[in-house]
Amino acid sequence: MRDVAIVGVGLTKFGERWSSGLKELMAEAGIMALEDAKITSNDVEMLYGGTMAPGRFTGQEHVAALMADQLGFKNIPAVRIENACASGGSALRQGYIAVASGIHDVVVVGGVEKMTDVTSSEASTALGGAGDQEWELFQGITFPGLYALIANRHMHDYGTTEEMLASVAVKNHDNAVKNQFAQFRKKITIDEVLNSKIVSDPLKLLDCSPISDGAAAVVLVPLEKARKFNDTPIKIVASAQATDTLRLAERDSITELKATKIAAAKAYEQAKVQPKDINVVEVHDCFTIAEILAMEDLGFYQKGKAGKAILDGETALNSKLSVNTSGGLKGCGHPVGATGVKQAVEIVWQLRGDAKDRQVNGANVGMTHNVGGSGSTAVVHIYKRAD
Amino acid sequence: MRDVAIVGVGLTKFGERWSSGLKELMAEAGIMALEDAKITSNDVEMLYGGTMAPGRFTGQEHVAALMADQLGFKNIPAVRIENACASGGSALRQGYIAVASGIHDVVVVGGVEKMTDVTSSEASTALGGAGDQEWELFQGITFPGLYALIANRHMHDYGTTEEMLASVAVKNHDNAVKNQFAQFRKKITIDEVLNSKIVSDPLKLLDCSPISDGAAAVVLVPLEKARKFNDTPIKIVASAQATDTLRLAERDSITELKATKIAAAKAYEQAKVQPKDINVVEVHDCFTIAEILAMEDLGFYQKGKAGKAILDGETALNSKLSVNTSGGLKGCGHPVGATGVKQAVEIVWQLRGDAKDRQVNGANVGMTHNVGGSGSTAVVHIYKRAD
Repeated sequence: MRDVAIVGVGLTKFGERWSSGLKELMAEAGIMALEDAKITSNDVEMLYGGTMAPGRFTGQEHVAALMADQLGFKNIPAVRIENACASGGSALRQGYIAVASGIHDVVVVGGVEKMTDVTSSEASTALGGAGDQEWELFQGITFPGLYALIANRHMHDYGTTEEMLASVAVKNHDNAVKNQFAQFRKKITIDEVLNSKIVSDPLKLLDCSPISDGAAAVVLVPLEKARKFNDTPIKIVASAQATDTLRLAERDSITELKATKIAAAKAYEQAKVQPKDINVVEVHDCFTIAEILAMEDLGFYQKGKAGKAILDGETALNSKLSVNTSGGLKGCGHPVGATGVKQAVEIVWQLRGDAKDRQVNGANVGMTHNVGGSGSTAVVHIYKRAD
Repeated sequence: MRDVAIVGVGLTKFGERWSSGLKELMAEAGIMALEDAKITSNDVEMLYGGTMAPGRFTGQEHVAALMADQLGFKNIPAVRIENACASGGSALRQGYIAVASGIHDVVVVGGVEKMTDVTSSEASTALGGAGDQEWELFQGITFPGLYALIANRHMHDYGTTEEMLASVAVKNHDNAVKNQFAQFRKKITIDEVLNSKIVSDPLKLLDCSPISDGAAAVVLVPLEKARKFNDTPIKIVASAQATDTLRLAERDSITELKATKIAAAKAYEQAKVQPKDINVVEVHDCFTIAEILAMEDLGFYQKGKAGKAILDGETALNSKLSVNTSGGLKGCGHPVGATGVKQAVEIVWQLRGDAKDRQVNGANVGMTHNVGGSGSTAVVHIYKRAD
């Protein structure tokens, strides 16, 4: 197995991109990534495309082949990866395997979702497919409901408060203000979160990540060849993935995501680092409670302790651990298939020192954490500058 | 890269499986494959699940995680692969890479589609997502229409006749009669095909593969460990994939599938065999014209010559080259995500000598050919007995 590096990244602005379809979004992020790696379409040997529900959002399946076509990657193998909201992270892991194995030298991993062409109700139903359709969604629960169950239990067991939940959204909006690609470049306050409409108690509107359009792309090559493409290649030092039951009701505990814990343990072992070594991390904050779980399940805080730490500012930009500097899913937006790839783009910028106003000082080791469903899939990657 | 072998196969009966949902189909094929490999759920390290449009057919996405959950593969990585009707073959290729690379030792590749819970019109629209939604489907053309364009041009350029097209369906039904897993175990005649209702001229109803439910699964391990699991491991000697434009209109020629030609050339090179060495092949006959193209593009016949050869019986069971002994997509059925994996199951049975009434005498080298869209994705695998 070879070491793998990221030598090109591309991203679209996330948001309600009325004037851009699936194709335009893919092209925008893809071309930016190729230019960043100083390569052309002809150099690319394989494409992985992560996207969750393009069939239901736009009528289009077979999206990786379309992405290859759209980007002029003539006749190369292209594979769509779908693992609900972890589609992007899962695609990145498959790209990593393809390069690490020696099968391909230049692999593009793209992530995309075009969600705003359907009604909110249709989007909610489509996203519901990430859970168990027959045993959860058909019975009437949606994703805010599933995460509200988790939040209520976490509050009951550990004294987590609505203010702590709200502080996640406030911090992530603070970061999003500094990110030109973010959907919500607007500060919010804890009071605004607490006073926003209840979606599923205790989660309010501002505890929830939005419906978004967007795309992201990265270019992967073997580390040994990386400096031909880029002066600051970023090495992927760990790639790990795990699953748990699709149904929340079948878990031993609903205040932790076992898939996250297992994937994180594998990733720390592969990278030979510990939580304390991580300087910057993008975690999957689809709902504010999800960031609290992530902080605990990734080993940054003991179970039940993350909420207060976030409220106290310990995970703000350039504090103890900089979390979701992109704005996270809450502030930057959550075009589901793009999210896992966007997380990698943000970490690459941070480790290169290119994150501008939101640069983490001394960022040497980064992590991404992408979740599908209510925790049925978790993908964790760890990155370092290739010095 | 390690050599990879198939040591377990499982298949459900294809057809209108009213009493089985997505979960039951996956479990049925998956358990059969595990039992065939003499392993339990605990032995499996990774799962790839091929399925095309479960969101639109059943509301369920995140199907690989569900499949892992349903089969008791606790906490292993699971990845859904979607490449339209080539989802199964693409999943097989990813499984092959995961084992060949040394990342995993025991990988299950499943394919599934549950298509009969929606109306024919809804199914047709969902399948249309395999083409370019904006530039093809939205303009009113469906897949029978796209393949009818190909058929008309092939007839115009090469003198291919409607009888030749019909002979594909007749042969495949002949084979399906001998396959207990096939949807249509019923002989048909050329006259019956010619007199069936026109779907899109010159394609009639009996030129078209059906809407089906079904699932298939295979267990992959490194060849060096294969005999621990099975006395007759089948080695995957080539795995290749290619893409072409999503839009039929953008191709240089519509009487050949360039993706098939490229994937086949790579596969022959990797396996170090020629078309004349292949004894048994499962090709992608979504429409009868597609089998004629496949015979030509895979190198078994010169362009324009396959139709007459098939009409003359050269590809019947135990003739010159046995093609689609399972009954193909036409006779065995076409649950789209399952098809590519089912093709591998059939070839494994043939190479093991376990194909019963439809056994090809002296089957030593087999091939599968799986196509997505109107030829935008093609996946070719070659197999040998591991003697």
